[in-house]
Amino acid sequence: MSNSYGRLFRITTFGESHGQAVGVIIDGCPAGLEIDIDFIQKELDRRKPGQSAIVTQRKEADKIQILSGIFEGKSTGSPIAMLVWNEDAKSKDYEHLANVFRPSHADYTYQAKYGIRDYRGGGRSSARETLARVAAGAVAKLFLRKLGIEIYAYTSQIGELVLQKPYKALDLNLVETNEVRCPDRALAEQMIAYIKEIRKQGDTIGGVVSCVCKNVPVGLGEPVFDKLHAELGKAMLSINAVKGFEYGSGFEGVKMRGSEHNDIFFKENDKIRTKTNFSGGIQGGISNGEDIYFRVAFKPVATLMQNQETINTQGESVEVMGKGRHDPCVVPRAVPIVEAMAAIVLMDFYLVHKALNFKNL
Amino acid sequence: MSNSYGRLFRITTFGESHGQAVGVIIDGCPAGLEIDIDFIQKELDRRKPGQSAIVTQRKEADKIQILSGIFEGKSTGSPIAMLVWNEDAKSKDYEHLANVFRPSHADYTYQAKYGIRDYRGGGRSSARETLARVAAGAVAKLFLRKLGIEIYAYTSQIGELVLQKPYKALDLNLVETNEVRCPDRALAEQMIAYIKEIRKQGDTIGGVVSCVCKNVPVGLGEPVFDKLHAELGKAMLSINAVKGFEYGSGFEGVKMRGSEHNDIFFKENDKIRTKTNFSGGIQGGISNGEDIYFRVAFKPVATLMQNQETINTQGESVEVMGKGRHDPCVVPRAVPIVEAMAAIVLMDFYLVHKALNFKNL
Amino acid sequence: MSNSYGRLFRITTFGESHGQAVGVIIDGCPAGLEIDIDFIQKELDRRKPGQSAIVTQRKEADKIQILSGIFEGKSTGSPIAMLVWNEDAKSKDYEHLANVFRPSHADYTYQAKYGIRDYRGGGRSSARETLARVAAGAVAKLFLRKLGIEIYAYTSQIGELVLQKPYKALDLNLVETNEVRCPDRALAEQMIAYIKEIRKQGDTIGGVVSCVCKNVPVGLGEPVFDKLHAELGKAMLSINAVKGFEYGSGFEGVKMRGSEHNDIFFKENDKIRTKTNFSGGIQGGISNGEDIYFRVAFKPVATLMQNQETINTQGESVEVMGKGRHDPCVVPRAVPIVEAMAAIVLMDFYLVHKALNFKNL
Amino acid sequence: MSNSYGRLFRITTFGESHGQAVGVIIDGCPAGLEIDIDFIQKELDRRKPGQSAIVTQRKEADKIQILSGIFEGKSTGSPIAMLVWNEDAKSKDYEHLANVFRPSHADYTYQAKYGIRDYRGGGRSSARETLARVAAGAVAKLFLRKLGIEIYAYTSQIGELVLQKPYKALDLNLVETNEVRCPDRALAEQMIAYIKEIRKQGDTIGGVVSCVCKNVPVGLGEPVFDKLHAELGKAMLSINAVKGFEYGSGFEGVKMRGSEHNDIFFKENDKIRTKTNFSGGIQGGISNGEDIYFRVAFKPVATLMQNQETINTQGESVEVMGKGRHDPCVVPRAVPIVEAMAAIVLMDFYLVHKALNFKNL
Repeated sequence: MSNSYGRLFRITTFGESHGQAVGVIIDGCPAGLEIDIDFIQKELDRRKPGQSAIVTQRKEADKIQILSGIFEGKSTGSPIAMLVWNEDAKSKDYEHLANVFRPSHADYTYQAKYGIRDYRGGGRSSARETLARVAAGAVAKLFLRKLGIEIYAYTSQIGELVLQKPYKALDLNLVETNEVRCPDRALAEQMIAYIKEIRKQGDTIGGVVSCVCKNVPVGLGEPVFDKLHAELGKAMLSINAVKGFEYGSGFEGVKMRGSEHNDIFFKENDKIRTKTNFSGGIQGGISNGEDIYFRVAFKPVATLMQNQETINTQGESVEVMGKGRHDPCVVPRAVPIVEAMAAIVLMDFYLVHKALNFKNL
Repeated sequence: MSNSYGRLFRITTFGESHGQAVGVIIDGCPAGLEIDIDFIQKELDRRKPGQSAIVTQRKEADKIQILSGIFEGKSTGSPIAMLVWNEDAKSKDYEHLANVFRPSHADYTYQAKYGIRDYRGGGRSSARETLARVAAGAVAKLFLRKLGIEIYAYTSQIGELVLQKPYKALDLNLVETNEVRCPDRALAEQMIAYIKEIRKQGDTIGGVVSCVCKNVPVGLGEPVFDKLHAELGKAMLSINAVKGFEYGSGFEGVKMRGSEHNDIFFKENDKIRTKTNFSGGIQGGISNGEDIYFRVAFKPVATLMQNQETINTQGESVEVMGKGRHDPCVVPRAVPIVEAMAAIVLMDFYLVHKALNFKNL
Repeated sequence: MSNSYGRLFRITTFGESHGQAVGVIIDGCPAGLEIDIDFIQKELDRRKPGQSAIVTQRKEADKIQILSGIFEGKSTGSPIAMLVWNEDAKSKDYEHLANVFRPSHADYTYQAKYGIRDYRGGGRSSARETLARVAAGAVAKLFLRKLGIEIYAYTSQIGELVLQKPYKALDLNLVETNEVRCPDRALAEQMIAYIKEIRKQGDTIGGVVSCVCKNVPVGLGEPVFDKLHAELGKAMLSINAVKGFEYGSGFEGVKMRGSEHNDIFFKENDKIRTKTNFSGGIQGGISNGEDIYFRVAFKPVATLMQNQETINTQGESVEVMGKGRHDPCVVPRAVPIVEAMAAIVLMDFYLVHKALNFKNL
Repeated sequence: MSNSYGRLFRITTFGESHGQAVGVIIDGCPAGLEIDIDFIQKELDRRKPGQSAIVTQRKEADKIQILSGIFEGKSTGSPIAMLVWNEDAKSKDYEHLANVFRPSHADYTYQAKYGIRDYRGGGRSSARETLARVAAGAVAKLFLRKLGIEIYAYTSQIGELVLQKPYKALDLNLVETNEVRCPDRALAEQMIAYIKEIRKQGDTIGGVVSCVCKNVPVGLGEPVFDKLHAELGKAMLSINAVKGFEYGSGFEGVKMRGSEHNDIFFKENDKIRTKTNFSGGIQGGISNGEDIYFRVAFKPVATLMQNQETINTQGESVEVMGKGRHDPCVVPRAVPIVEAMAAIVLMDFYLVHKALNFKNL
């Protein structure tokens, strides 16, 4: 158990891949926020299966239904419950997995931990759970929009295909113009072709999602344990298939000397700025007003359309091959999930900072 | 505020670099655990300043004092309060910083967030706070030892000097045989020489700490938000100067295909094992019994013994140069800190799993 | 916001009186528990409106629907989402209240706190929310039953009609044999007649629910802040209309001397017992194995079928009179709610104690 | 374990009666608050032992020492660690208790729960722990003072001696003019004489502390679980020896009809008020701007200067008689503790409300 996330803006998700519904309760949304349901739906549409040729072909409308917490179009301060009904679950495709542990899936660890496992579609370990995060993240985005905060995630790597340009050299408005969500058109086409090729081989591939948060006010983050980047890291690492997180200069920064890496302060129009931003917008665990940027590594999907060796629940050697409908690469659909989790973290920290910040005490 | 960490095994730290003391309260240590104070002290000694030529020369005994929670040598289930008195604080070395924001330090963000700042030695943002983590981590290690769990961290990169061998090819017992805590003797010497050279230049350098956790039982980790690697990631990212975290195949794994990356299950002496371990011992956010391993990126120390451009609290351009005693590279002293945070996370998850796990309900 | 309760066994509720649904997510139910849906429904039936002549006549089936967390009849360790659809909401009965603050209701404070208010049926402040607690409490009871723990609540006072007998002199199996849930038949009849008379006058009346928990193991409760009785107290005080909580000797006990009040220990069949039980089964905040008993005070319902003076949202004097369907006394329906909250507290503390309790460390 | 309390203003206490020190870490005190150490000390002096003839004669200076979180007289936003060294512990007086379970003490339950017990002075179960609460409460009072919030607790009952007047008929400035802290001089003298008589008999007596909170702004309290009175109730019930809590009309209110009990709204100088205040300043779990008042029941102290029957850890019948220095009645010293816990709750809820409250979203 640990299906809640956040301190003041707190989400609790539920639901399995082939259960009745997947949903979320948001507790701690300030009252008076206009809830634009169309926007929430649009965000879900960015994540939903069947949206393009390079993602799973499971057909779900993923239509959001709001059960509580909204009155006359606005949040009331009461918990906002939202859910999506599962409509296209084909549990038959999973019957052969009831007694088999798929390699690099959560089948074995769930069985070992809980002694029972809903094997249909991966049950609770399915990335279908992330739709609840996207719905909650959409609400957070509606709030952050009031503060001028913008969040842009995009695909920056698929397998060996790497987007070398820094985010400042990109037009982030291009992200949604292609199926793989890479803001470089030429590279996007290569990525799409590559994923199609991988799929044809019954194989899968990993990738990286990059994310930039603009106009974050100075002061978000709660040292020493809930540093802003620490919580962003946890939020990202909690997404299915994530293997790594780095912000600012990240792992590359370790090769630099302090004299290269330090971001020099200067003043620009009454605002304190830094000349470079190796800090990634966060210093001492607190936002400094510069762009926050980070990268999230996603492993290749574990379900293959190939025979794989494995064992069954009796410990006997067997072969397994994916049936059903799966993503050859999670990265394109992960883009809105990364944004959603970033929005949830930023909103939560904004509220905590607001609580404790007194101008004249 | 967020100076507590953990759910059931919960630590709360306090103290500034040049305040009276730095300490920790552990709440949730099971009763009956023998508390080996010498061991706690030894762990602190691994972290303490002045221990070698390549770390800060601040002279602190860092002698642990236990104020509560122990009776006749054993934990009682009551909170364990431990502290270390600050003895060698030289606050004069910091007076010139009272009104200056050092580049890439937390000076500016603390001032902006709190409107007040204890500038002496970095105040609360100083890595001196991590001694409290090491003390608490030592208690966690005493507990984990009862379960046979072992944790080994080591320096695997300093600047461009990279330890290429995987951890299985290393003798981890060599870690403590050299000042830089790298288990490859030849590389360790190069690293030490390199850090000395960097220091001579008044500069600093980053690096990577790798960590391996052995004999972790199957079942630790609490999806969907408190996945084991997500919490390990947060714990590591909360350490001063950390910029990135990856586990198992990490960022490199994104280049792999599923058919290469999947860890094939097999049975060995009644135990379910995997042939490879790109999963890093964690699947679906839950430990699978294989070794857990991860890497933590540390940026170069921000304080330089060089002149740097910056601004003061009035926004005027000034120059600043470090005085006092500083590390040219945090990595050697970070090794026990990484271990401590790993121990705290594993113990906490062990307790949560124990709470919820019923064999015959 | 604070719609979650519990540490390890944690419930999050949502829903308004006239919204689409009211429900709960249980996070932290151990896997492998048989979920007897009929039992959950029976518990809801004990709370539901329209069940007798002395309660509100709103007609709700209150049929439980489980959306997640159960597989083949058993809990899986994943969140259990349950809800009830609102079917008989008559929001028209509340239109006259949109701009009026009913005396001693939450209308004014909700409006002042949130700046917006779902006035229909009291919105989130309606006791309809408690059905979510009863559903969750039913799951907790299924768990506690495995441990042999039994919980009995009953009506012990309606207005001036007081059940003078101590619980040991009562046959608690009679509680469900009458509409007012008082285990003394003669007094029950008086109470029922009295409530009917009160209703006829368009008035309401308060009362007391007493509760006994049997076979609670020694050791539950987490000092110093989460003492067992402190958490039971909070849980009860969080129920709508509750004004007081006392356990064991309670407020009467303050008149006693220590020499009268102390419970003398003795040994009975290898079990440590106390001769008296003024402690109410809890000493130092921890259960001692004796019966836990406590009393919960409920104020008279605020909605009257009489004209009352009040003000509207403009601050103008107006008169208001209840429409719709209301309870003349909440106590009979509060009995299962008190039991549910007690069950949730006990289960939660049981899990926490299990986590931290090692026989041979 | 559960030695932390509060959400945003969060305290963590440690220490045993005869250990080295008792203390507290405050996490979440807003930065910039002037910390008046003299005031903190004065609050501790109101609680300290040996202050008068009717309390325990243990001689402790209870001098507060602040270790962190303050810079140039103001809070910095970092954790404030405060402690008091134990100086007059006479552990010899407790040696005869090492193997005996004192009636109605926490000896047996601590032993059973933890398997180990610091029997000296009651260890962690001693009310000496409450000094940490008073120190933290003093900081909360300094904050609340900025908002104009005032908290007055007083002794309203000792045994059968009951202060019948409502708080509005009392001069609360008289509380500190007598040793028993009763604002009615004549009754105070009777109470003092009574307690002396009880002490002479080697016996003890219970009592009630009443508390009034004035000028609490409208809007504090977080339904549905963290209603303001629910959290006040938990906070009070967590104090040693407390057996009951009621607010507003409390247990007496259950006898009233709704038509008597409802508090009629009216407007006074642009402020919404109620004509009566049976609600005790809280409606729907949220403060309504009227005075908050509540009562807390304390049982008679368990330690008697008389022989009592009991059993030892072997289960054998033995006799036990208190040695050492004890209170014949905890109530006089409990007055500042009740105020402290009330202050902590109000400050915490103030911060949470501030976080979530937006005027124009």
